[in-house]
Amino acid sequence: MDENAFGIWEGEVKVDLPAAFDASVYFIGRIRTPWKERKDCPKNARESDAICTLELDPRWADALKDVETCSHLVVLYWMDRSRRDIVLQMPRHYGVQRGTFALRSPARPNPIAMSVVRLLGIDGANLKVAGLDCLDGTPLLDIKPYFASTDAVPDATVGWHAERKR
Amino acid sequence: MDENAFGIWEGEVKVDLPAAFDASVYFIGRIRTPWKERKDCPKNARESDAICTLELDPRWADALKDVETCSHLVVLYWMDRSRRDIVLQMPRHYGVQRGTFALRSPARPNPIAMSVVRLLGIDGANLKVAGLDCLDGTPLLDIKPYFASTDAVPDATVGWHAERKR
Repeated sequence: MDENAFGIWEGEVKVDLPAAFDASVYFIGRIRTPWKERKDCPKNARESDAICTLELDPRWADALKDVETCSHLVVLYWMDRSRRDIVLQMPRHYGVQRGTFALRSPARPNPIAMSVVRLLGIDGANLKVAGLDCLDGTPLLDIKPYFASTDAVPDATVGWHAERKR
Repeated sequence: MDENAFGIWEGEVKVDLPAAFDASVYFIGRIRTPWKERKDCPKNARESDAICTLELDPRWADALKDVETCSHLVVLYWMDRSRRDIVLQMPRHYGVQRGTFALRSPARPNPIAMSVVRLLGIDGANLKVAGLDCLDGTPLLDIKPYFASTDAVPDATVGWHAERKR
């Protein structure tokens, strides 16, 4: 497959982006990981034991009170190198056209990633965590407590992904 | 407890916001729910059987391909009525000061909420889901497939919350 004149891959479809943005975000810190290029990032973050660091801007440090009591956290971050206009994608490792909202690809209208991480420790405004797969330097957007009661659905299924493995 | 001259509650602490934003988002649709005021919203979304609708802007409709194969989705949305400068909060139903990042409160530097919902059906660019607790008209930011392999941690704990219940 070749990238075409529009900078997208064969089988991919893009739309015109809206004329204006609707709201804005602050980068509240950076994520430090061992991975400097996308090809180095682990394919499945849960399988990676790599320890990463959420480096929170000291401005927000007081907001970490009680976070140390959480075993797991929801981390939101900004995948700042991605196209935002692709609605149908051809993930290269699958080779089948999929809708953007059926994928966790960084290419999406709002390139906000969500990862569930295990909290290993907090030192000042730095949090050591396991379970990330993003590039070193990725901008951090939010940290939330993970509540199993609302966030854990062990029997959830993704049909297209299950079929792929048969 | 009274709201003070700064518009925050006793026991709450705010910081100066950064001078500039770092990135911007598009509202890709709206969430239709039965709740018109915050006091009407359910306290625990998982306990609510209310059917809500994700009304996606038709611009993005093609990106829904394959989403119908997902039993559950991650929904990101923008809690557009919240203060963004509060680092220590006094949730009124707990009465104890907590750090913003230890809470799922809408008041946070980037008011992006994450909910796990059950997908009931798709009709064009409208998705019927269960598991939301937000106000009617809330702006939609993203829809992702929920992968139990990386997103479900049934034994995760939030220490401050468990202690509260003892």
